[in-house]
Amino acid sequence: MNESSIHYTGKDIEGMEKFFRRNLINCLSGFKSVNLIGTISENRETNLSVFSQVIHVGATPPLMGILFRPHSVPRHTLENILSTEVFTINHIHPGIFKQAHQTSARYQVSEFDSTGLTPLYTGQISAPYVKESFLRIGLRFQEKYILMNDTVLIVGKVEELTIPPKIIQEDGFIDLEAIKTITCSGLDKYHTTSSLARLSYPKPAKPLSEIQ
Amino acid sequence: MNESSIHYTGKDIEGMEKFFRRNLINCLSGFKSVNLIGTISENRETNLSVFSQVIHVGATPPLMGILFRPHSVPRHTLENILSTEVFTINHIHPGIFKQAHQTSARYQVSEFDSTGLTPLYTGQISAPYVKESFLRIGLRFQEKYILMNDTVLIVGKVEELTIPPKIIQEDGFIDLEAIKTITCSGLDKYHTTSSLARLSYPKPAKPLSEIQ
Repeated sequence: MNESSIHYTGKDIEGMEKFFRRNLINCLSGFKSVNLIGTISENRETNLSVFSQVIHVGATPPLMGILFRPHSVPRHTLENILSTEVFTINHIHPGIFKQAHQTSARYQVSEFDSTGLTPLYTGQISAPYVKESFLRIGLRFQEKYILMNDTVLIVGKVEELTIPPKIIQEDGFIDLEAIKTITCSGLDKYHTTSSLARLSYPKPAKPLSEIQ
Repeated sequence: MNESSIHYTGKDIEGMEKFFRRNLINCLSGFKSVNLIGTISENRETNLSVFSQVIHVGATPPLMGILFRPHSVPRHTLENILSTEVFTINHIHPGIFKQAHQTSARYQVSEFDSTGLTPLYTGQISAPYVKESFLRIGLRFQEKYILMNDTVLIVGKVEELTIPPKIIQEDGFIDLEAIKTITCSGLDKYHTTSSLARLSYPKPAKPLSEIQ
């Protein structure tokens, strides 16, 4: 497969048609997480939006990040997080992935109303969760970083977590396949997963074993 | 499934046993990309390390990021990127995922020698690629950001890309399943993927269609 490969230089990429390059470059990092972010404005308007740029930032304290595109146009999710300082991250399964994708349309009303997903409130966090999601995380805004291309990295601290009990293993590992959490590639493709293996902690000169 | 869910508060998470919390929180973002990062030191020593924290930062210019744990202990990959300013990102498939995982062991020699993966040089970038990988990206260091928990975000610009030709679709989308790129969850679990659908650009009041 290597022998017949296409080879692009930086100049080749620069010269690509804009939409071709956007699709291509968005695929390079590999499979991505995909989540629904729920927020609420100061005027109590809810917003729900699908994001493929949620990352793990740290476990102690428990921090997660979202990378937003430049704030050069209105971005309701980002604006709501900055004004109310809370947001929710909700895993997506095959039963709701089309509704999740549809939240990206430019609606004049809340994406909850337009997609039929159900807002859920716990009292702990004022932002809405997605009732149909099986794993729901409530976060409080901590820091904002503006990167070199004007993308905005928001870091939040986990303040609430709702999760089905049977999928947490003895050592804390969560079996995401048991709740059918999906993954995505590029800007618009969605995938389910199948387990290859969970591997033991690697040490020099010691063969790996599979964790059951 | 929702009715019987476990509910954790921030305080509950704070009180968790350290390794339990680390495993649990690392799973929260969902499925992650997993890649081999190749670097070289100023003394021409190669390094290869598996990372689940590679993200898409932008398409124009083509930027990708890696989030590193705090630089409080030696981190060869990070140090090599800062001194030689180049690195490679190499996709992982089931044929090399155990070797990829094994690169995390604390070797005294290059992870290429100890895992049997083959360094490959193109002349464009001094950092080594992984010959066994089907999708290989060469990048030049652009910026470093230190986040609130001392994790380090490195952003690089894509300067070279090698990719099998038949997996690039007409609009630039890359069919990662055709080269069996894998995904991971938590700290040590690996997964293959299966396509659900590629969905059309969402517009209000217009049903989604599937892109073939």
